[in-house]
Amino acid sequence: METKYILDENDLPRQWYNIQADLPVPLSPSYNPQTKEPIGPEDLAPIFASELIRQEVSTERYIDIPSEVRDILTLWRPSPLYRARRLEKLLKTPAKIFYKYEGVSPPGSHKPNTAIAQAYYNMKDGIERIATETGAGQWGSSLAFATQLFDMECKVYMVRGSYDQKPYRKMMMQCWGAECIASPSKETNAGRAMLEKDPDTSGSLGMAISEAVEDAASHANTNYSLGSVLNHVCLHQSVIGLETLEQLKMAGEETADVVIGCAGGGSNFAGLAFPFMRERIAGRMPDCQFIATEPSACPTLTKGLYAYDFGDVSGYTPIMQMYTLGHGFVPPSIHAGGLRYHGMAPLVSILHHEGLIDAVSCHQNEVFAAAVAFCRSEGIIVAPESAHAIKTVMDVAEECRRTGEEKTIVFNCSGHGHFDLSSYEAYFAGALPDYEYPADLIAASLKDLPKIQ
Amino acid sequence: METKYILDENDLPRQWYNIQADLPVPLSPSYNPQTKEPIGPEDLAPIFASELIRQEVSTERYIDIPSEVRDILTLWRPSPLYRARRLEKLLKTPAKIFYKYEGVSPPGSHKPNTAIAQAYYNMKDGIERIATETGAGQWGSSLAFATQLFDMECKVYMVRGSYDQKPYRKMMMQCWGAECIASPSKETNAGRAMLEKDPDTSGSLGMAISEAVEDAASHANTNYSLGSVLNHVCLHQSVIGLETLEQLKMAGEETADVVIGCAGGGSNFAGLAFPFMRERIAGRMPDCQFIATEPSACPTLTKGLYAYDFGDVSGYTPIMQMYTLGHGFVPPSIHAGGLRYHGMAPLVSILHHEGLIDAVSCHQNEVFAAAVAFCRSEGIIVAPESAHAIKTVMDVAEECRRTGEEKTIVFNCSGHGHFDLSSYEAYFAGALPDYEYPADLIAASLKDLPKIQ
Repeated sequence: METKYILDENDLPRQWYNIQADLPVPLSPSYNPQTKEPIGPEDLAPIFASELIRQEVSTERYIDIPSEVRDILTLWRPSPLYRARRLEKLLKTPAKIFYKYEGVSPPGSHKPNTAIAQAYYNMKDGIERIATETGAGQWGSSLAFATQLFDMECKVYMVRGSYDQKPYRKMMMQCWGAECIASPSKETNAGRAMLEKDPDTSGSLGMAISEAVEDAASHANTNYSLGSVLNHVCLHQSVIGLETLEQLKMAGEETADVVIGCAGGGSNFAGLAFPFMRERIAGRMPDCQFIATEPSACPTLTKGLYAYDFGDVSGYTPIMQMYTLGHGFVPPSIHAGGLRYHGMAPLVSILHHEGLIDAVSCHQNEVFAAAVAFCRSEGIIVAPESAHAIKTVMDVAEECRRTGEEKTIVFNCSGHGHFDLSSYEAYFAGALPDYEYPADLIAASLKDLPKIQ
Repeated sequence: METKYILDENDLPRQWYNIQADLPVPLSPSYNPQTKEPIGPEDLAPIFASELIRQEVSTERYIDIPSEVRDILTLWRPSPLYRARRLEKLLKTPAKIFYKYEGVSPPGSHKPNTAIAQAYYNMKDGIERIATETGAGQWGSSLAFATQLFDMECKVYMVRGSYDQKPYRKMMMQCWGAECIASPSKETNAGRAMLEKDPDTSGSLGMAISEAVEDAASHANTNYSLGSVLNHVCLHQSVIGLETLEQLKMAGEETADVVIGCAGGGSNFAGLAFPFMRERIAGRMPDCQFIATEPSACPTLTKGLYAYDFGDVSGYTPIMQMYTLGHGFVPPSIHAGGLRYHGMAPLVSILHHEGLIDAVSCHQNEVFAAAVAFCRSEGIIVAPESAHAIKTVMDVAEECRRTGEEKTIVFNCSGHGHFDLSSYEAYFAGALPDYEYPADLIAASLKDLPKIQ
């Protein structure tokens, strides 16, 4: 009775899967934030590597993974797929629960899948320094790890709330040679303006993106790097789902019935789900259901608008069509820092809009209850972000107990929670607030969407 | 060009290897701390499970691993063996460096290899609660993890110095349902006596052992569990070396030239080394060298006596023949908390005494320099304990660069350093002291060894 399914490192995918080849309707163009004209490669060239710009708009179904990138990915990939037999037993469910565990990477999450690729392409373009933002710290540490391996510098603007909650993340980045400061900071115009408006702000991903973009645009030989949302990020994360499809075959499963992931910017969800979506669209898994789980405090897919909006607070990024709560929305300071983003990957957004992806939201305390059940059955202490997926998995598995359905559930366990233990402590102490859906704040920020002609 | 060597979970060893079958001279008996008579099973029965007592004195070469234990070990085992190609390149060495990575276990080190077995045998004996001590926290979290999976309670006495340095370890134990308090505590007679003597003591493993043994002896249905030193612990850890031998074959290596591990109580070193020692003793790897690395601040093998001593400060444990700095020796508060033990596993001790194991010691700053070189080349942030092994590996590999020897070096990378990042921060800040060999303290404590008739 197998517990985990392990691929050989030679089975690491040689190509990424690009869902832009299979969309039911094509993505709308993005727009220049100043001119409001559709953007071309020249708009992105000042801060992105050329190959990443090409990938951003590519509609090729498969794109080769460079051997230098594969070499590094094999430090931890292929990642294991587990059958959660102990969780199944705890839930007394007839469902089969599988999880892909991305916490085995050195930084502890799925994020280095794209960090390595992005650092590589920037290095190929002669870039010597990358600026970025990070929420919970998973992305910042991943880019620190990646740039270190390619001998580049890295500057990370970390959302203040997480920076204060998770001091170890900053030290981890320092171990990999990166500089990490709290955002908003006094080092950028955008940061200074935000601090002037609210000196006590806990920050947000949208604010930190503004600072990192400004840093990249104003420093020589520096590019910007984003850890989620963009099409090329979802592309790089597709290794997760591609491996999982092979591993399910090892487990004797030809199809999945439900594919689940948490969604902040959307990339870990996309990474697992898109290769399965390809199977659904191609008619090989016609009944496969997809569920993205988000926090009730930041309910982008479940309460947001499908509209054009900036990716950041200050309006420096291209205007993209996506689900959004408004670029000015500052979510309450929940512990799943990686899910505190006002927008959603355009690729996840369009598939939700087309009815191919469902979305649910949950509160902190029920999420941590799920996390504790998971760590006490499967043994792994997960990140609060990943615990959102587990909450939905448990709901689906409990529904199966009631109906008797033997569904095959697959979810992305996107990262470990070794740097999130203070949030577990707060949960045990009964000190975690469950924020109501911040309807007023969202309504206010949605009034301020940019206009596209 | 492979980076890592992964065994299938069906290749997890079905038997532990017991080096007591192959010792050049047999172990001396241990003695009852009160009567000073050789101990028998009845002396250990009040606090140890019956099968563990049997294993402690067994001279069978192979002992079956129960299927319930194997089932849980497969949550993370077999663990990967890596070829450290990036470190080799950094060092410009012709040596081949391999490392077994035990940090993939949920608690983050090799410790659950024995915690699972110990919890299982105690559960089989009807025990409902286990008391233990922990230094750096690796052992305490491992036993918390293990007892949780067998539905038992767990109480952990954590050395005060580490308790204060690593608050996340305590929270981790709480996630797995265990109670963790700082030692010396006011909850035991031993602890109260130590606090009376020195209210500001940073504690030691020897003190914490006294408290846990007293707790077990004075609570109903409670046993004691030790995470290192004892023969049955070294036995359970042999899965590390047994797997590594198979994985080296996958890598095309028939022999190892140097086997390296850090040594505190000796169990991670023994786990890797003993199956290789079997090969050496059987004449299949006649030239294989073994090196144990310890901190200069607690130089048990390099500066201690081979003598009879207690395993704890208060003299509650059996008197064992081992290398010791004296049971009253309190090491300086270095960051490698798992290596702050006055004694050494009797099995490691006898093999060192017989000239089969070499030992070296190093200072904190050179150890952290090695850890940073490792994390910046191989990507993994290691525990300060494991970094001691890396320092020796780098020394041997650099010697190979000078001599041109293409040695095959294998070391045990026993755990990750996710909860040790404050010590990295102290290193970067230049705030880590390099303690001189505490000769006076050791000489004083060696005057107080127990007398055996």
